[in-house]
Amino acid sequence: MTTLEAMDMGGIIHPHTTIGAPDRPVIFDRGEGAVLWDVHGKSYLDGTCGLWQCPAGHGRKELAAAAAAQIERLEFYSSFNDYSNEPAIRLADRLLKLAPAGIERVFFTNGGSEGNETAIKLARLAQYNAGRPQRTVILARTAGYHGMGGGSLSATGIDRLRTGFGPLLPDVEFLGKPHSLEHDTDTLVAELENKIAELGPDRIAAFIGEPVLGVGGMVPPPADYWPRVQEVLRRHDILLILDEIVTGFGRVGHWFAAEYYGIEPDMIVTAKGLSSGYIPMGAVLIGRRVLDLADGATFSHGFTYNGHPVGAAVALANLDILEREGLLERAKTVGARVMDGLAPLGELAHVREVRGVGLMLGIELDRDAASVQAGARADGLIIRAAGNNIVISPPLVITDEQADTLVRVVSTHVRAAGN
Amino acid sequence: MTTLEAMDMGGIIHPHTTIGAPDRPVIFDRGEGAVLWDVHGKSYLDGTCGLWQCPAGHGRKELAAAAAAQIERLEFYSSFNDYSNEPAIRLADRLLKLAPAGIERVFFTNGGSEGNETAIKLARLAQYNAGRPQRTVILARTAGYHGMGGGSLSATGIDRLRTGFGPLLPDVEFLGKPHSLEHDTDTLVAELENKIAELGPDRIAAFIGEPVLGVGGMVPPPADYWPRVQEVLRRHDILLILDEIVTGFGRVGHWFAAEYYGIEPDMIVTAKGLSSGYIPMGAVLIGRRVLDLADGATFSHGFTYNGHPVGAAVALANLDILEREGLLERAKTVGARVMDGLAPLGELAHVREVRGVGLMLGIELDRDAASVQAGARADGLIIRAAGNNIVISPPLVITDEQADTLVRVVSTHVRAAGN
Repeated sequence: MTTLEAMDMGGIIHPHTTIGAPDRPVIFDRGEGAVLWDVHGKSYLDGTCGLWQCPAGHGRKELAAAAAAQIERLEFYSSFNDYSNEPAIRLADRLLKLAPAGIERVFFTNGGSEGNETAIKLARLAQYNAGRPQRTVILARTAGYHGMGGGSLSATGIDRLRTGFGPLLPDVEFLGKPHSLEHDTDTLVAELENKIAELGPDRIAAFIGEPVLGVGGMVPPPADYWPRVQEVLRRHDILLILDEIVTGFGRVGHWFAAEYYGIEPDMIVTAKGLSSGYIPMGAVLIGRRVLDLADGATFSHGFTYNGHPVGAAVALANLDILEREGLLERAKTVGARVMDGLAPLGELAHVREVRGVGLMLGIELDRDAASVQAGARADGLIIRAAGNNIVISPPLVITDEQADTLVRVVSTHVRAAGN
Repeated sequence: MTTLEAMDMGGIIHPHTTIGAPDRPVIFDRGEGAVLWDVHGKSYLDGTCGLWQCPAGHGRKELAAAAAAQIERLEFYSSFNDYSNEPAIRLADRLLKLAPAGIERVFFTNGGSEGNETAIKLARLAQYNAGRPQRTVILARTAGYHGMGGGSLSATGIDRLRTGFGPLLPDVEFLGKPHSLEHDTDTLVAELENKIAELGPDRIAAFIGEPVLGVGGMVPPPADYWPRVQEVLRRHDILLILDEIVTGFGRVGHWFAAEYYGIEPDMIVTAKGLSSGYIPMGAVLIGRRVLDLADGATFSHGFTYNGHPVGAAVALANLDILEREGLLERAKTVGARVMDGLAPLGELAHVREVRGVGLMLGIELDRDAASVQAGARADGLIIRAAGNNIVISPPLVITDEQADTLVRVVSTHVRAAGN
């Protein structure tokens, strides 16, 4: 064991590990495009984009320059109350130009969990301010993932992530998993209508969902699901919070999955791809209906690093890259190439489904997928197993050749898992 | 109004503002040491260190260089599971060397709210894992501030920050404000004992508190408060979470206020001063008692940017600055100078108290302090009014001359508020 490995194991508790039983770490040293190198010089193809955070890929020197230039000028000052800074102002303006119709304001955060905490609080406050304080219920979905804070975890429908943490936020109600293998749209929409009738629409503040389930298995919903859900929610005056932390900024071939599905959410929560993860940064995009309900309310909320000028400067440079290099289009073409390559796996008896949108792909087995993750890693490919599901979501800069390698290695280990 | 001002007002919702009624912003452009300049070239002495986040002061070029060098090498990769990176490992090691006795592990975060969400979840999980799942209650304090997420807000004892957000986390119980103007230590300790007896100690997971109240008014507790509270908690097997987001990394003249008060908490939550705010970064320091209770539990928790290599690299360089320039000692000497300068205000009829530790100072009036904030700003000094309290906490690099200016301007406007 190296000194660094021992220091890691003796000093750090990593997320999602067992306390008192640390794993020997893989210590990454360098990244470029869709490739990473560990401290031993071994290279890995990044098939997950870390945690989906780097559409622009690793090692972008122009983002280092953007960060350094902003730090030298003004590294940070609070954006609370009436304080502001130019990069945050320009980023808000740009986001409003990219956002779907109806979005009119930006509230900055530090990352995805903070974004969903913000959206849940603002939805409740908007209803409270509009004279409907009894509208506190948040509708969420089984297999949905919204983060690890008190509010965002409360809306996360994955039991193993909730166990042992005591009672969470009251007034969160769960609906079934929006997956055609389990339910068709008619069933899902009927369940939503029934839940609203059961609780009473005048108890419900908002509905929260990821356009495509991420941690829950890279699952696109049935094609007509979102427009029909939106219609029901509007009819009952329930706000729609779309959690685009994973899908935003190109992964599904559009700036936002809301475009792809043809809906106009009341809030869109973003993070990750906004800055390609170079500096933590997030933004909640807020629509007219929320602004009207909340008009005149003081929003007594905000995290320290709101509107961080370095995060904003890096986000602006990152959006430049996504545009200049045509990476949204690239998500479609290389996504189709990977999907075509993986599709034959769907014929295997132990494979339940190969699915995805753009470069947000998943394979579901009828058994645990851990062996696929381990086998791929040994062959220099990082993918992620989550229970029976395999997460595939490389940086949007992945080359055709790298994409073919990814398909080949994944196919080998998925086939081997059938033995 | 300038174009930038109009873009801000038309695009951004700032924390703690009224929706639909934006203020005309002060747009900062540049910072150096304890001075900021807005886009019109007006200079301001930074009397609050933003939101307490910059002990090393503004405009440090070596932190820009540290950030850029790390981004060029490896901007980020997830630290979930067994993935790691060298700056995070070295930062954890360094924090463990600085931390009080009993602290043995580090869990990284993105900021203070995330840190308190983490500590509350880990306290409950530790008790659950030790076969005491009924120990879910968190004891918190009136006027305490722990953040804006679902869990951290639930433990925040300031009513105006909670109103309108619906039901928060169950099983949080509040104690009185630890302020000698309101209660002496005997009363506070008796209240704690009574609350424990009333709930039953076998219902209580942890006690959370800031060593010195921050947002709640810059209030140090009575001198014997913390050792006596710790004694009670240990006797009842209740974990102590010390929220050092504001006090950590030098503000009270020590690495941690735990040293100053002579206690050994089970968890210490840090953020802000760790990186001087240049890049969002936080760390929860975890003690042996927590590790023993949680041994063998999977900690299914973690925010995307856990162990961010850029944040870690900048934090290491920031700790170098704090050490090299003797800024902990500086907090004591310049803190005493400011305190001496402000002390005569305590004689005024409308001033309830002038108080503080190190460079964490407060003045409490018998009336709203907004006029002091506004008057000081017009004179080029930023301080913060929170209700009747005035927050004074400049960067630790403030010069003697700047400190004297701060005293003079604050004194003028505090005196004027008496008219």
